[in-house]
Amino acid sequence: MMERDEQYIKLAIDMAKPTVGQTSPNPAVGAVVVKDNEVVGLGVHIKAGEAHAEVNALKMAGDKAAGATIYVTLEPCSHYGKTPPCAQAIIDAGMKRVVIASSDPNPQVAGRGVKMLENAGIEVVTGVLKEQADHLNTDFFHYIETGTPYVFLKTAMTLDGKIATSSGESKWITGEAARNDGHNYRRRCDAILVGVQTVINDDPKLTTRIEGNGKNPIRIILDNHLRTPLSSQLLQNDEAPTWIITSSRVSPHQLKAYRSKGHVEVISLKSPAIKIAEVLSYLGEKEVTSLLVEGGGTIADAFVRAGKINELITYIAPKLLGGKNALTPVEGKGFEQLKQALDLRIQSTEMVGEDIKLTAIPKGRT
Amino acid sequence: MMERDEQYIKLAIDMAKPTVGQTSPNPAVGAVVVKDNEVVGLGVHIKAGEAHAEVNALKMAGDKAAGATIYVTLEPCSHYGKTPPCAQAIIDAGMKRVVIASSDPNPQVAGRGVKMLENAGIEVVTGVLKEQADHLNTDFFHYIETGTPYVFLKTAMTLDGKIATSSGESKWITGEAARNDGHNYRRRCDAILVGVQTVINDDPKLTTRIEGNGKNPIRIILDNHLRTPLSSQLLQNDEAPTWIITSSRVSPHQLKAYRSKGHVEVISLKSPAIKIAEVLSYLGEKEVTSLLVEGGGTIADAFVRAGKINELITYIAPKLLGGKNALTPVEGKGFEQLKQALDLRIQSTEMVGEDIKLTAIPKGRT
Repeated sequence: MMERDEQYIKLAIDMAKPTVGQTSPNPAVGAVVVKDNEVVGLGVHIKAGEAHAEVNALKMAGDKAAGATIYVTLEPCSHYGKTPPCAQAIIDAGMKRVVIASSDPNPQVAGRGVKMLENAGIEVVTGVLKEQADHLNTDFFHYIETGTPYVFLKTAMTLDGKIATSSGESKWITGEAARNDGHNYRRRCDAILVGVQTVINDDPKLTTRIEGNGKNPIRIILDNHLRTPLSSQLLQNDEAPTWIITSSRVSPHQLKAYRSKGHVEVISLKSPAIKIAEVLSYLGEKEVTSLLVEGGGTIADAFVRAGKINELITYIAPKLLGGKNALTPVEGKGFEQLKQALDLRIQSTEMVGEDIKLTAIPKGRT
Repeated sequence: MMERDEQYIKLAIDMAKPTVGQTSPNPAVGAVVVKDNEVVGLGVHIKAGEAHAEVNALKMAGDKAAGATIYVTLEPCSHYGKTPPCAQAIIDAGMKRVVIASSDPNPQVAGRGVKMLENAGIEVVTGVLKEQADHLNTDFFHYIETGTPYVFLKTAMTLDGKIATSSGESKWITGEAARNDGHNYRRRCDAILVGVQTVINDDPKLTTRIEGNGKNPIRIILDNHLRTPLSSQLLQNDEAPTWIITSSRVSPHQLKAYRSKGHVEVISLKSPAIKIAEVLSYLGEKEVTSLLVEGGGTIADAFVRAGKINELITYIAPKLLGGKNALTPVEGKGFEQLKQALDLRIQSTEMVGEDIKLTAIPKGRT
């Protein structure tokens, strides 16, 4: 029985994987309905506001759902939100058994879906391939637990730690394969963030450029003194919203110039100098569940020193550039003592084209 | 037959592996004597001036060498050097067949050993597991072909390319396992090289500190203006020779102070500013076949820009330090244009303790 349970949960996880990044602020979920060892229904959650995975799977199963088992990667919801509770839909369909991987990450409602099902006389099994299923929604779980987005820091450097030559040439450090791989994180994240200096120096578009297109992230500029050029691509190109986050010291007169663009919003925080924690709280309130920090070095340093990096993605190009004045991926003030360093644990190492890709998470987390 | 040939050559390679680094300026070589499918003799070359691998294997085989096959990782020598030619010893032993992996790297004598054997009516097979056997003696082959040592550049940095904090704390960036692994390269190389600034800042000993001890490399300081402190460990500690390489501008008066130490030698090159190519030619003349460059960033940059790095060994500690002023592994002037960068090809990636170890060689080489 156990083996079969794992097999169907695994299928549900595999189905949910490609939806990671498109369901925000909801989690990615997969569901499989099985009757007499035959798959009779499959479903995933496609997009916030649309049907949940269980509902889609039950719809496909139709009358066959009665007496069947449903395998679902996340505990079915028990509350009325944008859609009716899935636990109720399972009960109404007359199902016999529910197999669940992850529990609801919200401690206030965790277990309620299970209880609702059990009270209706349905057999419930929990925790099957829990770790794998949890991994689908690392950022969503972080968001539910903290109210702030899960932060990816993405960097690219040479084997001697340089992101540009001593004269500032930076296009390109890594190869095409690595750069394309990096774009997947833009699709996956709700928002992408850079400092105003990067906008001034590089004038990036920050859209998702992958084969077959892909969802663009909200583009966020941290800009203490509101120096973002009106001519910059982030203001001229309206393929995605652009949010300029600035300090309390900016005058209404300064703000005025940015009001004419429909896709641009300027947000003045309460502090006279932008604080990373304040930025993340604001983004959490706006239902930004995941954030991709893409540069430059001063911004990366601010996130590192604030202890707000949840995952590091580094592409390393196998070349040496040298140069005392060449820029590095994390600059700013930095830590003075080694014991203050942000200690990470390597999660994966792989070759992407001719470059190396490393992912790492802060030590002590899973 | 082929399979058995590979099997015995593989054994000879495995036997020679642990001797890499101890045979300089000779290559590491292994030999196996087989008669009627029984191993009757095994030999390696232990140390320059002592018996060659073939001679050791023949000595073990004794009378059984007559009519037997010898498997040897490198073409037997045909000239009278510190020892008589091995090809002659094989002929004298009445052997029937010789199986060879690598050819002699010296184009002037390559094939002569084979010819000498064939002229004596012995069956000779060449090129069996050649690539693996060549790899045993990458540095020796380079030395024979160029007359200059094979140069390893060893660096250690964080995941954001730092070798110290912004305040200069550098002990230790990597963990104990990585540092121990690094010491194996000191044992393996004939000499280790640092800049005088590293001597002034860190006062290192540069000896080989591995379990069970190990051969110390010759310790070389590049010191344009002869600033090496007389109190430094490299001058006070006589566990290994210390060579100070300086420019032509240094006065006889300056040199005098360094003469009292028996293990210390000061070498004035012909140029008013030390040139890397000149250093390597000098070391080649002194039969230094392999050189480990260990820092700091200015010296590393000089070797990189001179195009004299043959292999890079990088340990990456999974931590972020930040800091615009924190030092990086390759500093100095650096390359101004990306197209000038030293392009490498990753050879290996492995975890050493909690750190990542990468090795890479310049593109276009094997």
